[in-house]
Amino acid sequence: MLIKEDDIPALARGCAVLGTGGGGDVRTGSLAARRAIQAHGGVPLITLADLPEDALILPLSGIGAPTVSHEMIHSEDEPKRIAEEAERIFGRAPAAVMSSEIGGGNGVAPVAWAAQLGLPLLDADGMGRAFPEVQMVSMYVAGLPADLVIMSDVAGNVVTIRPVDGLWSERLARAVCVAAGSSALMADYVLTAAQARGAVIEGTVTRAIAVGRSTEQTADPLGALQDELGARRLITGKLTDVERRTSGGFVRGSAVIEGTGADRGRTLTLELQNENLVALEDGRVRAIVPDLITVVDTETAIAVQTESLRYGQRVTVLAWACDPLWRTVKGLETAGPAAFGYDLDYVPVEELA
Amino acid sequence: MLIKEDDIPALARGCAVLGTGGGGDVRTGSLAARRAIQAHGGVPLITLADLPEDALILPLSGIGAPTVSHEMIHSEDEPKRIAEEAERIFGRAPAAVMSSEIGGGNGVAPVAWAAQLGLPLLDADGMGRAFPEVQMVSMYVAGLPADLVIMSDVAGNVVTIRPVDGLWSERLARAVCVAAGSSALMADYVLTAAQARGAVIEGTVTRAIAVGRSTEQTADPLGALQDELGARRLITGKLTDVERRTSGGFVRGSAVIEGTGADRGRTLTLELQNENLVALEDGRVRAIVPDLITVVDTETAIAVQTESLRYGQRVTVLAWACDPLWRTVKGLETAGPAAFGYDLDYVPVEELA
Repeated sequence: MLIKEDDIPALARGCAVLGTGGGGDVRTGSLAARRAIQAHGGVPLITLADLPEDALILPLSGIGAPTVSHEMIHSEDEPKRIAEEAERIFGRAPAAVMSSEIGGGNGVAPVAWAAQLGLPLLDADGMGRAFPEVQMVSMYVAGLPADLVIMSDVAGNVVTIRPVDGLWSERLARAVCVAAGSSALMADYVLTAAQARGAVIEGTVTRAIAVGRSTEQTADPLGALQDELGARRLITGKLTDVERRTSGGFVRGSAVIEGTGADRGRTLTLELQNENLVALEDGRVRAIVPDLITVVDTETAIAVQTESLRYGQRVTVLAWACDPLWRTVKGLETAGPAAFGYDLDYVPVEELA
Repeated sequence: MLIKEDDIPALARGCAVLGTGGGGDVRTGSLAARRAIQAHGGVPLITLADLPEDALILPLSGIGAPTVSHEMIHSEDEPKRIAEEAERIFGRAPAAVMSSEIGGGNGVAPVAWAAQLGLPLLDADGMGRAFPEVQMVSMYVAGLPADLVIMSDVAGNVVTIRPVDGLWSERLARAVCVAAGSSALMADYVLTAAQARGAVIEGTVTRAIAVGRSTEQTADPLGALQDELGARRLITGKLTDVERRTSGGFVRGSAVIEGTGADRGRTLTLELQNENLVALEDGRVRAIVPDLITVVDTETAIAVQTESLRYGQRVTVLAWACDPLWRTVKGLETAGPAAFGYDLDYVPVEELA
């Protein structure tokens, strides 16, 4: 498949849904992807089977607070500087770009980065959603060594980190990101096609496009989206309180939705850290990370990202199961409730009342 | 010359004097240097003339707040990891270690790093003193590109920065340092012997040893030191107020010395940022960066580093001329009063009343 300009709106809508509020602004990513396709042509979407065993895959993502990346568009130079540094280190040029996280702008922008580099995009990512911290990727859960991070910022700096582990990777990359103005482009877990087997989540670009297409040309976008995702509806109502603060390269906060219509009298509270992490009702968990929780516009079923939450919006909160990888012991250690500082047990969303 | 264990005390005393309060704790550096010489033997001290044109020089320094580096001793692994990364990048191993700053522990510890790497130490440095920020080196003033910084911390992480300029180099290196616990080992301006000519300050290891030796076996250490340095005495008195705070990887603060004896009734205030930057008396500048200002024990003439300033100490403040490089336009732009946020003109210490 060739990703063309008119695929971008569906991809962007799907990535916003899979982003659970985060992953960077999809509008910025869409704009970059459309411009790059206009300049360089469509981007071939390939699978792991299309690549030789030793082909180098460059997983790219923006890192930073969404409220900042919203304002800053990455330049064409950043992927080039990262690809050059990867070639300098590995002795050969990357053969494909991969999205590190399919959620949010980080799922869409890799189309731009691939187009700018003249490379195909791999139909896979490292999360199947969005997560706020850089070690929260499938490659880490699969046990690949977190031994190299390459970053570049809009000023033109290139920083290469050889961390002793994934937590140091996050700590150092985050510090560099904050120093660079809370926004940078990053390659994490540069890997061969052979290493990628079982260590990336395949098919997620195709899935994001399908999720985005599901709400097109239907009288019931919300129902269609719910079916496509296999999601449960936690509440339909009105946003009555939103609290956000940007600190240390993250957006943290909470959002309160008061039920309307059939849900009148109920209140759902979302805890945020770039992404929606926990949905609480009357002190009970209704859904919790790593399962996916997304706020959508009740009428259009378009996802509302964290930075766009506004008082008075009419929204529905959907929740559905994460990739099985995140439900393993290592997966939950990496991105379960405790990894975010919550003293709450993980219970799969389909088992919660 | 071979630097032997019994040269270390004189080197350490000299480096403390040249450190103008900063440059990292000399006790930690001395301990590391003595241990490394015991384990690996003495370190040859060489000059630029001893090196082939394309020999690679590895300028090393600790970066961080002195109050932290005092507590953390760098491991043997850090210089090795940095040398390996330099070899990976340049395709050949470094031929010599150089001190980035001769002041403080950063002037002494390179003896340890050279011994651990089995390399000679170059009789030169990048400051002729100590400065708090990483771009404040002679290589920067000489116009060498600030295009590579290699850092390693005690946890084992290695970070390589390819900054667009010296200010970004400082900003990113400082962020990494803070994330790494406010202490890291750093190679900045890795350069060839050919590039080093005119871009490093030669003879400073020899000078530090001579400064340290000047106070040995004399009835008047203070007078001997003053003569050796060509320094002027700003005040002799008692430390009556010391204010220090560690923030952003720096120690900032001030110290007040009230005159005693012939200086009774006079008060000198020092402004600090790791180093002593300005000496003020009655609102008038008595000495100012980049000229050197050092607090010494009045009786022993041993330098008192910033982190050791204590209420009640009997001290004398000496000030003397910096290397001519720092008095050039580019030198003053880089490390003159304005570079530290002072709205004060630079006047050479010998022209001040």
